[in-house]
Amino acid sequence: MKQNNNNKLGIKGLTDEIIDAGSKGFMHDDVLIEDTFAEAFDAYVASIVITAVTRDLAETAALSATGFATSVIGCGAEAGIDYHISPQQSPDGRPAVSIMMVHPDKKQLKEQVIDRLAECILTAPTTRVFNGLPDATEKMTTTLHYFGDGFEYQTKIRDRDVWAIPCMGGEFFIEEEIGVVKGIAGGNFYIMGVTQATALTAALAAVESVWENHGAICSFPAGVVASGSKIGSLKYKFMKATTNHLFCPSLKDRLPDSLVPEGVRAIYEIVIDGTNYDNVKQVMHDGIHAACSINGIKKISAGNYGGKLGPHKFYLRDIV
Amino acid sequence: MKQNNNNKLGIKGLTDEIIDAGSKGFMHDDVLIEDTFAEAFDAYVASIVITAVTRDLAETAALSATGFATSVIGCGAEAGIDYHISPQQSPDGRPAVSIMMVHPDKKQLKEQVIDRLAECILTAPTTRVFNGLPDATEKMTTTLHYFGDGFEYQTKIRDRDVWAIPCMGGEFFIEEEIGVVKGIAGGNFYIMGVTQATALTAALAAVESVWENHGAICSFPAGVVASGSKIGSLKYKFMKATTNHLFCPSLKDRLPDSLVPEGVRAIYEIVIDGTNYDNVKQVMHDGIHAACSINGIKKISAGNYGGKLGPHKFYLRDIV
Amino acid sequence: MKQNNNNKLGIKGLTDEIIDAGSKGFMHDDVLIEDTFAEAFDAYVASIVITAVTRDLAETAALSATGFATSVIGCGAEAGIDYHISPQQSPDGRPAVSIMMVHPDKKQLKEQVIDRLAECILTAPTTRVFNGLPDATEKMTTTLHYFGDGFEYQTKIRDRDVWAIPCMGGEFFIEEEIGVVKGIAGGNFYIMGVTQATALTAALAAVESVWENHGAICSFPAGVVASGSKIGSLKYKFMKATTNHLFCPSLKDRLPDSLVPEGVRAIYEIVIDGTNYDNVKQVMHDGIHAACSINGIKKISAGNYGGKLGPHKFYLRDIV
Amino acid sequence: MKQNNNNKLGIKGLTDEIIDAGSKGFMHDDVLIEDTFAEAFDAYVASIVITAVTRDLAETAALSATGFATSVIGCGAEAGIDYHISPQQSPDGRPAVSIMMVHPDKKQLKEQVIDRLAECILTAPTTRVFNGLPDATEKMTTTLHYFGDGFEYQTKIRDRDVWAIPCMGGEFFIEEEIGVVKGIAGGNFYIMGVTQATALTAALAAVESVWENHGAICSFPAGVVASGSKIGSLKYKFMKATTNHLFCPSLKDRLPDSLVPEGVRAIYEIVIDGTNYDNVKQVMHDGIHAACSINGIKKISAGNYGGKLGPHKFYLRDIV
Repeated sequence: MKQNNNNKLGIKGLTDEIIDAGSKGFMHDDVLIEDTFAEAFDAYVASIVITAVTRDLAETAALSATGFATSVIGCGAEAGIDYHISPQQSPDGRPAVSIMMVHPDKKQLKEQVIDRLAECILTAPTTRVFNGLPDATEKMTTTLHYFGDGFEYQTKIRDRDVWAIPCMGGEFFIEEEIGVVKGIAGGNFYIMGVTQATALTAALAAVESVWENHGAICSFPAGVVASGSKIGSLKYKFMKATTNHLFCPSLKDRLPDSLVPEGVRAIYEIVIDGTNYDNVKQVMHDGIHAACSINGIKKISAGNYGGKLGPHKFYLRDIV
Repeated sequence: MKQNNNNKLGIKGLTDEIIDAGSKGFMHDDVLIEDTFAEAFDAYVASIVITAVTRDLAETAALSATGFATSVIGCGAEAGIDYHISPQQSPDGRPAVSIMMVHPDKKQLKEQVIDRLAECILTAPTTRVFNGLPDATEKMTTTLHYFGDGFEYQTKIRDRDVWAIPCMGGEFFIEEEIGVVKGIAGGNFYIMGVTQATALTAALAAVESVWENHGAICSFPAGVVASGSKIGSLKYKFMKATTNHLFCPSLKDRLPDSLVPEGVRAIYEIVIDGTNYDNVKQVMHDGIHAACSINGIKKISAGNYGGKLGPHKFYLRDIV
Repeated sequence: MKQNNNNKLGIKGLTDEIIDAGSKGFMHDDVLIEDTFAEAFDAYVASIVITAVTRDLAETAALSATGFATSVIGCGAEAGIDYHISPQQSPDGRPAVSIMMVHPDKKQLKEQVIDRLAECILTAPTTRVFNGLPDATEKMTTTLHYFGDGFEYQTKIRDRDVWAIPCMGGEFFIEEEIGVVKGIAGGNFYIMGVTQATALTAALAAVESVWENHGAICSFPAGVVASGSKIGSLKYKFMKATTNHLFCPSLKDRLPDSLVPEGVRAIYEIVIDGTNYDNVKQVMHDGIHAACSINGIKKISAGNYGGKLGPHKFYLRDIV
Repeated sequence: MKQNNNNKLGIKGLTDEIIDAGSKGFMHDDVLIEDTFAEAFDAYVASIVITAVTRDLAETAALSATGFATSVIGCGAEAGIDYHISPQQSPDGRPAVSIMMVHPDKKQLKEQVIDRLAECILTAPTTRVFNGLPDATEKMTTTLHYFGDGFEYQTKIRDRDVWAIPCMGGEFFIEEEIGVVKGIAGGNFYIMGVTQATALTAALAAVESVWENHGAICSFPAGVVASGSKIGSLKYKFMKATTNHLFCPSLKDRLPDSLVPEGVRAIYEIVIDGTNYDNVKQVMHDGIHAACSINGIKKISAGNYGGKLGPHKFYLRDIV
């Protein structure tokens, strides 16, 4: 899957001199890919399709329902927009957005799905809710129909069984059984660039390239993590996680053991949750290829805990 | 402040025959304004300015930080984008977005501010955090600088004292004292239209007209509530709030005491939180005027609990 | 393909009483479909794929290149965005937008393609140009490579032969042979609603539903025509086209021969250009279905000249 | 107006070693500002305010009307969105966009204004047209009211005299006298960065910082020129303008007289048209400051013809 250098916008060799001698790896598209792996965890994944009278309204509701959901460390869930669905392919013939909600604990995931659908989709104009994983054997029941106060009734929209709930804005339709699968959280890779703008452009290109890959999300704002963390703290005992200081470019000169390669001024991390191993792997592949196509990226790496914590390993050498 | 009928797109008199005889009120721009009031509550309001290298990144981070924050009934806070700030006016010369977070309880508000800034702004590429209410006498300290694990340091950006926290993406700057004021939550009005598309267009026009009013937000998706609720339930004892059945157009024929005017097919509610009474009142004024400019709106009303619960009353007769 | 009434948002029968007795037709989803046809013309169609480092930049350049291109009556061409292409499917692995340019005269089309690519794509940051119809037997040569002033050279991006043109921003790549086919211009239908907001919402829903249909564009702003015209004028001899007065709702009461149905307050027209008959027909089908799903639409019709001018006829009875 | 280095995201000194010894200038925010000037021309400027029922529709129509309008070398006019207007400040209480159209020849400007308003605004849903320069002493009459075919009539919207033209979508309102002033075209500056992504990020930041400056536009796609040109050609006699080869980074190694500084991989140009000298100067000031705040920008320069062609000079030393 080697892309030719034309993707480098015709300026070859810029990064040739800047190979990072200290770490083992191989070259892809003039970028050093470190010989390491991303470590990831088990997590439950619910998938929900939101439709509305316009794509804009479907997306606005989806953004609200998946907001404040970057990491389960500080949020109730990890969530994001997965992909868009054309009216021709959507459950009710209207523009649709497929969202994903993720949590290691199934019960907490269910609570979050219910709260987020109740607060952000039921309240949104013209939206409807459909099960995004109709083939999943495991399901959770959202019980939003009680909001109808007895005036709700069961009906069908095309092939889907739904509750119709009378509302001030019209009727709200919801397929209350939402499919759940055991998926993966925490797939990741690092993008290291010669300027912040370079690393940022590559990170955004990586996210954009995987935007519509089905079955995977990047839950952080714009899909990019600017402040990757390490577990615990050197100085503040009460902190569960603090800045990953060995990867901070502004600390390179002060820290002899800094892991920031020579000439790198910014490192962005892409974190991926997915419904299964292959979806996460595909996103890592496509994202790394997109990032490497930007001139001025020196190195790609990934984060792990030595393989001790997460059962899933994604070796960059296998992926790129 | 009477606008002329040209805003009705040149088709006069459409709504003349549909005045709702049952409720008292007055006509504005051919729309019946009911003689009632909106009832609102005390709430603490924090205001935060987010800057970034592009407006898009500032807005994306702001959307994440203010997501899942429609109503404190089911969310940790009520939050939303307040207004945009040009680079020329922003604290650090970059595009900025001012957001608002609201909660009746000051301690819970502080927890939410910390969590949402830590999870959604600190993690976002190129963002910085500034106090949006520098003149407020009351402040909360967000303590995000501990993330720097001892590598953080204090500095100045123009006239603001900030912490600089080394991160993988560069340095994160934050003004840790965030101003808080005692404001108002729950200002509201209802928009009733002859079709759902008409009421929806009017609701969106109302929200758009107040989008950049400073000191007030509409925390629901797209700023519009499609499923206004009543307290409690007729049928399900375990439900705290259920559909406001007397205002559901699809139930009008079944409920003799329905409050849906003749010919109305959809009712959308606009809910407003603000830093003070006047800001909420101004948003109600501007929003109602915008809604009434759409042909096919029959009536404007507002929600209250008979004046028993909320200390703040907004009389439509004073406002329009 | 009859959709069930659940798409009507649960409020049945709204439009039952408003069937337009004067014109023949049939009912679809409670909307009267007039027994008429759209009349369309031959036109040459060029298709071009624009890629860029971000989707946003590709789209911005595409909007510029297809601007001021609603109708060949007053613009140099008819043009628009056809569909979006994922990095995985695009010619060079980057986000892409496929645009279409249309003109009845092949020579004028070529001039427009050259001018619009030279002024709006060559000048845009990071964009590249690829042939959108590689299988078309007919091609036009754009000769943009002369801009390279002798420094240009031929190379390959994946399987495409391109010119590389050194520029201040890097290198510009262009596949200079652009495929052309004989297609169709002027497919159309009318959407008639009980309020302007209703007709507008239906028109926008129609456009949104066909947004990603390949091989067809709606060249007017937002894909919607607000001021459909008749040929010539009753009063001003020097005017080639004037307002289609018999379809103006505000004139209904003054014109005994008005064709505006009772209760209709706004009529929007959707005009479609496509690479072939079937693509235009599919867009008409999907668009009419989407429009009819909005409550308050009373009638769908189409525009023709009695079959005397355009060789292509689209009968609504066959399409819906 | 010196900004402090905190805008450099805390990484000082990156560009210190890369000062371009060959050209005279001074340092601003660690960037070399060349001692040169931008040369600009006289041009007539028309300003038009477009309102619509939503901001999105106003903007969509404005984009269409200002499309294919980057440079008068190959387009009928130079045009762009100038700034946004809140409903509270707009002529009719609805969201508005102010656009600018520019041409050195007054007659050609008038033709373009008429054609672009007729094809792209009159046809767009719910739009209206107002004079954006009501205080200008010089005016052009657009005569669009003839489209009404005798059914048009004169009326007032607030304090503006308008024609009302019956249309299929409702009524179209237009203030037919559009103000014109003698302004300036071709203000410019160059942004030179260590990678393409760096120069691009700086260019977009520059454009974003001036987005809402009143009285000036950047007419190229995204406001950025990627392929700055020289007059004439070394090789192709029939070409009026070709690539500015001395500023092409990919040619630096081949051309001994290359003007590309050491280490620069991309140069983007920002071109500005404005209603007067001061507006263009302000945009140059704000844009250069924004560009210099991005780490990895090495030099700012500007384009001129030795002062022989354009009567207006903008010296960078006076501006920054």
